[in-house]
Amino acid sequence: MRIAILAHEKFPQRAKTALGILRYSDDDPIAVLDRDNAGARVADFVPDVQDAPIVSRMADIDEPVDALVIGISPIGGEFEESWRNDVRNALERGCDVISGLHYFLEDDEEFAALATENDCDIRDVRKPPADLTVSEGVASDVEADVILTVGTDCSVGKMTVSMELAQAAREAGHDAAVIPTGQTGIMIEGWGNPVDRVVSDFTAGAVEEMITEKGDEHDYLFVEGQGSIVHPAYSAVTCGILHGAMADQLVLCHEAGREAIHGYESFSLPTVSTYVDLYENLAAPVNEASVVAGALNTSGIEDDEDARRELEAYENALGAPATDVLRFDAKTILEAVL
Amino acid sequence: MRIAILAHEKFPQRAKTALGILRYSDDDPIAVLDRDNAGARVADFVPDVQDAPIVSRMADIDEPVDALVIGISPIGGEFEESWRNDVRNALERGCDVISGLHYFLEDDEEFAALATENDCDIRDVRKPPADLTVSEGVASDVEADVILTVGTDCSVGKMTVSMELAQAAREAGHDAAVIPTGQTGIMIEGWGNPVDRVVSDFTAGAVEEMITEKGDEHDYLFVEGQGSIVHPAYSAVTCGILHGAMADQLVLCHEAGREAIHGYESFSLPTVSTYVDLYENLAAPVNEASVVAGALNTSGIEDDEDARRELEAYENALGAPATDVLRFDAKTILEAVL
Repeated sequence: MRIAILAHEKFPQRAKTALGILRYSDDDPIAVLDRDNAGARVADFVPDVQDAPIVSRMADIDEPVDALVIGISPIGGEFEESWRNDVRNALERGCDVISGLHYFLEDDEEFAALATENDCDIRDVRKPPADLTVSEGVASDVEADVILTVGTDCSVGKMTVSMELAQAAREAGHDAAVIPTGQTGIMIEGWGNPVDRVVSDFTAGAVEEMITEKGDEHDYLFVEGQGSIVHPAYSAVTCGILHGAMADQLVLCHEAGREAIHGYESFSLPTVSTYVDLYENLAAPVNEASVVAGALNTSGIEDDEDARRELEAYENALGAPATDVLRFDAKTILEAVL
Repeated sequence: MRIAILAHEKFPQRAKTALGILRYSDDDPIAVLDRDNAGARVADFVPDVQDAPIVSRMADIDEPVDALVIGISPIGGEFEESWRNDVRNALERGCDVISGLHYFLEDDEEFAALATENDCDIRDVRKPPADLTVSEGVASDVEADVILTVGTDCSVGKMTVSMELAQAAREAGHDAAVIPTGQTGIMIEGWGNPVDRVVSDFTAGAVEEMITEKGDEHDYLFVEGQGSIVHPAYSAVTCGILHGAMADQLVLCHEAGREAIHGYESFSLPTVSTYVDLYENLAAPVNEASVVAGALNTSGIEDDEDARRELEAYENALGAPATDVLRFDAKTILEAVL
């Protein structure tokens, strides 16, 4: 599929869906839309993902495009009106639109009419299936080992770590799958429940449903975690995933240098060992789980040696092996996990 | 308002909405529908709430009724087809229907048509307002002291304790209000967000919205907690309320003799001190909160002396004063809280 990815004013640092798709999707990126960086290329900012030209609007793409993917998501998941022309242009040329926003594009009257007129689809991947319900507390019954990525905050790399670990496990000859819980993971894997968008009572159930569906088909399931257990807004989702997944092992993801909750800067991050205690103690009454490894996102650090020093400090605080799965490789974590 | 309350096969022990309404609502109960106990009266089972005759179906009530209230909620919140005749009969006689089920009665084609035909309303109180969004982490900015009831499990009395504490505080001359987060509380108070039914990402936000709305109008807010932080299915909601409410003080509610999660009996309850640590440690990074008192539901114990012994054991385990707010009175807790 030939795709364009909308990432206005957020590429690359705050466009985690766009980056995730460029890194892991099998689709062919034709262009990234970012009015702030038009004329540059993806490779100018991020060398290790699929490259594509950056343009300022959908109308600037002359080639055929199969789908426009919304590659950014503001806090709250609202649609920004400044994107309307791009979505309109995509639909007018018969191109599907794939969105992970809380605001459903298919409920937008103009977009719905344009999609019908031009015989193309709007896919709101954050719209949960209608048949979800409460957890039965049975995810631990599956044959697969379940490994959950948990975080010190949002946007520290949980999805990336889950993808890299599953890939590394497969390369090592194991049968491993990702359980996608967020819009980017769902877009990449082509299935999954948007756990942050389900009815709150069904949070754990939405995870359990995926694990029981896939758990006897694979040896290892890497569950994409969300948020953080101390996030003022999103901890409910984190807690529901922790109890719904009934994971055997946890990988604590953190970004080097992050000291406060992103977007909620008056809330300091507690210590690494506080996170370990919180996740393990909260998991235990439902299913014992240990933090067996750490993943440190060092993308903000230029020098490899500095990154290694941060990594060492993180390992010491954690009392477990850790690595940066993109900068170095996923092996250290994989060995601790398998 | 003259109301009938549907509680088939669950009255009184498993009909907590029905009981809550009989205990706290200003409405006038005409009858309780329970096909298992038709011919008896409420007072035969529960002496300290509003009395009413128990009948087997809506059609057996000859008097005029303003509203039929669904007073029970099975796990999952589904509608049971065996209730259809009662709801149909209510709507046919022009009587409103008030429901807190996850299944929205107003989306049921037959019920919607009957309501239109007979000019009456279906009120699904578990349908959340459309304008909820993510928490901003600001609930602690309000002037009121915020007291949250937390639990060792579902159905241990959190709503009852919140109601009794608010009432006792008002009787002591304070300006106190309840923040209702579940269907029963909402039915009693006539407003509130059904926090277990909102988008999971908005769980904390749905609580925060109510606290910021009411927090400068009262001296004390008693927030109705939900579920339990170690519940295999519902912990997400509990966690979202804990962080969204940013409470100053917590009251730990428990039922004497409860040893396993209700409906999930393979999950044992951890110790009381484990709960205290979990709630306090999880609250702290967002807003420091202490368990300052306990509420023990001793309704399953006949003898007052036995109840007092259980209470003493609970106080010792908790390291804080505790009482049964219905059997004895709310003063002990109120003194610890105010």
